[in-house]
Amino acid sequence: MKNVTIVGGGLVGSILSCYLSKRGHQVTVFERRADPRVGEAERGRSINLALSDRGWRSLEKIGLAEKVRPIAIPMNGRMIHHLDNSTTYQQYGNDGQAIYSVSRGDLNKLMIEAADAFPHVDFKFNQRCVDVNFDKTTLTFRDTKTNTETVQEAETVFGADGAFSEVRYAMQRTPNFNFSQTYEAYGYKELHIPDKDGLWQLEKNALHIWPRTSFMMIALPNMDGSFTCTLFAPLEGENSFASIKTDEEIRAYFRQHFASASELIPTLVEDFRKNPTSTLVTIRSYPWNYKNVCLIGDAAHGIVPFFGQGMNCGFEDVQVLDELMDVHADLTDLFSAFGKSRKPNSDAIATLALNNYIEMRDLAARPEFQLRLKIEKRIAAAFPQQFQTSYSMVTFSDKPYAVALEKSKQQSQLLDEIMRLNTIADTWESDEVLNIAKKWIDANA
Amino acid sequence: MKNVTIVGGGLVGSILSCYLSKRGHQVTVFERRADPRVGEAERGRSINLALSDRGWRSLEKIGLAEKVRPIAIPMNGRMIHHLDNSTTYQQYGNDGQAIYSVSRGDLNKLMIEAADAFPHVDFKFNQRCVDVNFDKTTLTFRDTKTNTETVQEAETVFGADGAFSEVRYAMQRTPNFNFSQTYEAYGYKELHIPDKDGLWQLEKNALHIWPRTSFMMIALPNMDGSFTCTLFAPLEGENSFASIKTDEEIRAYFRQHFASASELIPTLVEDFRKNPTSTLVTIRSYPWNYKNVCLIGDAAHGIVPFFGQGMNCGFEDVQVLDELMDVHADLTDLFSAFGKSRKPNSDAIATLALNNYIEMRDLAARPEFQLRLKIEKRIAAAFPQQFQTSYSMVTFSDKPYAVALEKSKQQSQLLDEIMRLNTIADTWESDEVLNIAKKWIDANA
Repeated sequence: MKNVTIVGGGLVGSILSCYLSKRGHQVTVFERRADPRVGEAERGRSINLALSDRGWRSLEKIGLAEKVRPIAIPMNGRMIHHLDNSTTYQQYGNDGQAIYSVSRGDLNKLMIEAADAFPHVDFKFNQRCVDVNFDKTTLTFRDTKTNTETVQEAETVFGADGAFSEVRYAMQRTPNFNFSQTYEAYGYKELHIPDKDGLWQLEKNALHIWPRTSFMMIALPNMDGSFTCTLFAPLEGENSFASIKTDEEIRAYFRQHFASASELIPTLVEDFRKNPTSTLVTIRSYPWNYKNVCLIGDAAHGIVPFFGQGMNCGFEDVQVLDELMDVHADLTDLFSAFGKSRKPNSDAIATLALNNYIEMRDLAARPEFQLRLKIEKRIAAAFPQQFQTSYSMVTFSDKPYAVALEKSKQQSQLLDEIMRLNTIADTWESDEVLNIAKKWIDANA
Repeated sequence: MKNVTIVGGGLVGSILSCYLSKRGHQVTVFERRADPRVGEAERGRSINLALSDRGWRSLEKIGLAEKVRPIAIPMNGRMIHHLDNSTTYQQYGNDGQAIYSVSRGDLNKLMIEAADAFPHVDFKFNQRCVDVNFDKTTLTFRDTKTNTETVQEAETVFGADGAFSEVRYAMQRTPNFNFSQTYEAYGYKELHIPDKDGLWQLEKNALHIWPRTSFMMIALPNMDGSFTCTLFAPLEGENSFASIKTDEEIRAYFRQHFASASELIPTLVEDFRKNPTSTLVTIRSYPWNYKNVCLIGDAAHGIVPFFGQGMNCGFEDVQVLDELMDVHADLTDLFSAFGKSRKPNSDAIATLALNNYIEMRDLAARPEFQLRLKIEKRIAAAFPQQFQTSYSMVTFSDKPYAVALEKSKQQSQLLDEIMRLNTIADTWESDEVLNIAKKWIDANA
């Protein structure tokens, strides 16, 4: 391949264009939206991003990490806000480890600027992909400003156009393309805690969670001292979006369930009415390539946001693709190796992300689960070579997600066993617990 | 609703138009293909249909059963052709019970003729649906002869346009629409055993199977004395379509695996080359309706053909919809009740159909499985009120598919238990076996 067309100038499309430019390719990126560097940013439906090790590694390799660092706020742990307004802090990893809150809009703008500075990268905005002809390898784009269509010849195409990928909709009609889109019975809505004189009204370096068993709110810090909050709740039924209709119902809902937070959201009712209730979907597809077109990122494997891994997984996709380019000269071989390598891992993070909603909205608030996390961390500290916490494997390691999922399941059996000890609440810091862990580690090595 | 638009004039679209006409609606059916009553029929990719009780009931209710009977050939059982050319006959149900071989082309033609004779039913052929506007409820059709597009206003729409439904592709982009398309790793190809002087060269009143563990061939009788054969095999790997490339490889494959049949297929190599290798897909979706558009038949729930239930399930859809029309005046209520009622059943038949491939290609040839079927039938004969064979519940009953699947699973445990008896090969006709069954039936009543 020499000339590469990327559909989608979001985070994955942008970083991919950098990697391809560095390899000497001529890259054209077609983006449906307007150039984010000019005009107003979209607001009201962006769960803030949590950049973690996999994302950083991919940024680092292409020389962009230092550009991103100034707009990234470390969150070293999660702050659980209980119903009685008390809090519990759970550190995510070891001292110094953190995930980083980044505004999607700011990051995307920065990435496009950076990509534009790479040689032979050309961005075309306001171009909605409306058709892919796989036989001729042409793409049809509709200019959203002039409403005119142009047919572009393309040598090699990456569909990096997100969970609702038009490239994938077209690929769906090709032979043997497996695909599913699965919506959750819950949705989300963005709310806003403003700054107070440029400062943060909650602990800045934490991800805040108000777990309420079947629903929750979270808040992530922004650079300007504000927090972006997201309410996740069932679409129908008890405590659902459907159950909150009037202004008074909105106020009562927040007073009852999120008293401490709602005081900090002066525009609660307005935000609630103005911002959409968005849905959550998991996308699975395979194979990711047909002829000289390949899906990447959310277009191939959209996931729910609860492990903060969507962007990180997409960035890792690009890094893995780049490594495979050293090995495979033939395009079909490359695409096929890429899909084979990444599919089990994207399946695994999809599962991990779904499971983590249960942890965030329910388990995280339970004393016995908090104890379990402490024990897990203690074992990891005692046997750092053989045992990593489930969260750390996903967030602070480069273990394939599929390995992280498998090991998490295994380690969960050990933790189940330990938690069954009658006296565990009193003895969790004892040698006995570490001895059980040691035995298990030796047996499972 | 008064005016109804049906997209798809296949089997389900046709029978639906009859039912709606009878209720006084004005029905327009848009069909992508040409009018089958004029010109050549499509050939080369039609697994013959097996019409069974559910299908007959739906035809009966709208007065079409007697029209179909003359083109339906009863198959009272399956004839297993072993590798050594010996055969085993397995009767499907009780004496007089049968499934019926029907040519898809002939049946479709007959159904369109019949539907056309109903009042206020208007067929429009060569009309490919290319867009659905759910807000305005308009449909765009492209005339495949003139290549011109027309926008049709529609009051109520049924998408009966099959597994690759254009209505569903459009619905896929509406909120919270769950969808999956799952392809099998095996495909199929049609072959042909001609008549001999207008007579059948194999037993006429049977469905013929050549089970070869990981692949198989089947043959269903046609009215003219010929048989339509279908080879099902893996797409890649051992004994796969990919492994048979040259004429000599085709001949050798059939000589080795299907010696008795291949002698009866004079145009083997020609057919093999000419007919496509088709794929097999399972379609799952939900909800089936959005605004005033509703999916029905394969468009909502395409399944693999191994239980011969695709058409029967689609016909039953229409009958259930008709019954619900007596209860629900409101369109949204009707569609919603229809989906709720049919979704668990279409999921169940999808599973049953996938399982039945294993039975047909592998189990059916095994002596222990043949014994198991005999025992199952014996129990059913002894306790006809409480116990029906798995096959009969699906094929010769009006039990919801979901109930048939659940009961099959339960009964399977009883049969496992009986098959574990050491002496079962000798004692299967004993009272002991019936006593075990009686006890199990009493306990599970």
